[in-house]
Amino acid sequence: MTELAIGIDGGGTSCRAAIADRNGTIIGRGKSGPANILSDLDNSLLNIADSARQALRDAGLAAETISSVAAVVGVAGANVTDYGQRIEKALPFAEGRVVTDALIALQGALGDADGIVGAFGTGSVYNARKDGRLNGIGGWGFVVGDQASGARLGRDLMERSLLAHDGVRPASPITDAVMAEYGNDPEHIVEFAHSARPTDFARYAPVVFEHAAKGDAVAVGIVTDAATAIGESLEALLWPNCPSICLLGGLAEAYEPWLSRYRPLLAKPKNDALHGAVELAVKLLNERQRGSA
Amino acid sequence: MTELAIGIDGGGTSCRAAIADRNGTIIGRGKSGPANILSDLDNSLLNIADSARQALRDAGLAAETISSVAAVVGVAGANVTDYGQRIEKALPFAEGRVVTDALIALQGALGDADGIVGAFGTGSVYNARKDGRLNGIGGWGFVVGDQASGARLGRDLMERSLLAHDGVRPASPITDAVMAEYGNDPEHIVEFAHSARPTDFARYAPVVFEHAAKGDAVAVGIVTDAATAIGESLEALLWPNCPSICLLGGLAEAYEPWLSRYRPLLAKPKNDALHGAVELAVKLLNERQRGSA
Repeated sequence: MTELAIGIDGGGTSCRAAIADRNGTIIGRGKSGPANILSDLDNSLLNIADSARQALRDAGLAAETISSVAAVVGVAGANVTDYGQRIEKALPFAEGRVVTDALIALQGALGDADGIVGAFGTGSVYNARKDGRLNGIGGWGFVVGDQASGARLGRDLMERSLLAHDGVRPASPITDAVMAEYGNDPEHIVEFAHSARPTDFARYAPVVFEHAAKGDAVAVGIVTDAATAIGESLEALLWPNCPSICLLGGLAEAYEPWLSRYRPLLAKPKNDALHGAVELAVKLLNERQRGSA
Repeated sequence: MTELAIGIDGGGTSCRAAIADRNGTIIGRGKSGPANILSDLDNSLLNIADSARQALRDAGLAAETISSVAAVVGVAGANVTDYGQRIEKALPFAEGRVVTDALIALQGALGDADGIVGAFGTGSVYNARKDGRLNGIGGWGFVVGDQASGARLGRDLMERSLLAHDGVRPASPITDAVMAEYGNDPEHIVEFAHSARPTDFARYAPVVFEHAAKGDAVAVGIVTDAATAIGESLEALLWPNCPSICLLGGLAEAYEPWLSRYRPLLAKPKNDALHGAVELAVKLLNERQRGSA
């Protein structure tokens, strides 16, 4: 095995890879297509390997080097049945380990320290590391979970707009804006909602936060409910002397003012998920070399 | 035009018809396949006409009589764009009027009186008649509405079971039962939820009410939230001296104990929706005959 470690962040829109020496110094980066292992395993495997080869090329190394490196791949679904193991077997690395996207995000954010990570984008999910042991909750999707996700914020906005239209709850500038967008026809909202994917609902999340910041009563209600849900999940994970809570994802910054109760614990993430994957790959490399020494 | 009136309740599982004389005395009944006009207009038209012919046969009348009767058809979607008019043109009656399922249900429940009707089955919807004028709210489907529907009760149960599994909210006998049903694997609940139709979620509604009656904290929470939503919708419709509120649908009886605040106004429906359609058809018949006299 060469003294090279590759970390890969296998995401739903692209795979990003970075190659480092045994001290963790990054010497090359690569990017390829998406990894959606549960829906398209074959192309995910191709893209994961391709991003690694791009990183080798970027570092001025031969593509064949791929078979002598240690690699850690973080990808959503790695913990579903035997997907992780199937990918480990199929990848071209000397030593490859497949872990969840949550683990590389946590490693990137906290390094080797204990703490809690909450990720808020289209979905919402929480992971804690306490005494080195991992515990994850949430992330079940917006239909019956992900209470603080962008998708739920958008779905709630549609629901409250219809309630305002019916005169059941008060209207506000944000519900007026939604009704106007849909031609003041509730049927159009229903049509949208019944075919909307999580990302379709989630595109309303920034609008909800904007109006909430201006004091719009409906938007404040939606964000307050979501922040309450975040608090409940954090309380389920928190322990005395928990050193820090990191908020990640596209909505992290927007939620911060609504989580003032946790302000003393809130910390900026140290690094991103790709860096977390590299850190884990360097650990793997050093373990293997100690093992073979 | 003969002195015959046919009322038809065009439902998603079957069309039911009843034929009456000009005094409203029912002399025959018929039944045929479903009417889902928005998804299958052609077969809906066939089934509507077939149920009417069955009723004529049941009354000992020739099938050709169909072209000389007055008929009122109540069917979901009649108010969507021009569907109602398209059906009116296509039906074989001397005079046919197509109205919403909500209107025949209201007519059946209240007769010609003012009042409010709330219908609680797989969906939930409210209709009021005040000074003879109709006003309907709700019924937007469980994704972004129908807060007191069976579908929402079931979806809420799945969501709260996952929260209990994650330790975010307390577990209870009902969440334990759900988790056991799904092999204590949250992924199985997520899989169910992401493909579940409203009726799939709604099959849990009776279970929620059963546990709520026994004091299960989670079930009580779910039903209380739904009853609060019913209250909000009723308040949006209620007026001083509103004579009565009728609860209709498969969950009407189950909700009654949770709506004690409205007990003085709650009244049993006078008749069912099919009877409401017959009443409206008799009115139509008498109007036409007065018009042509």
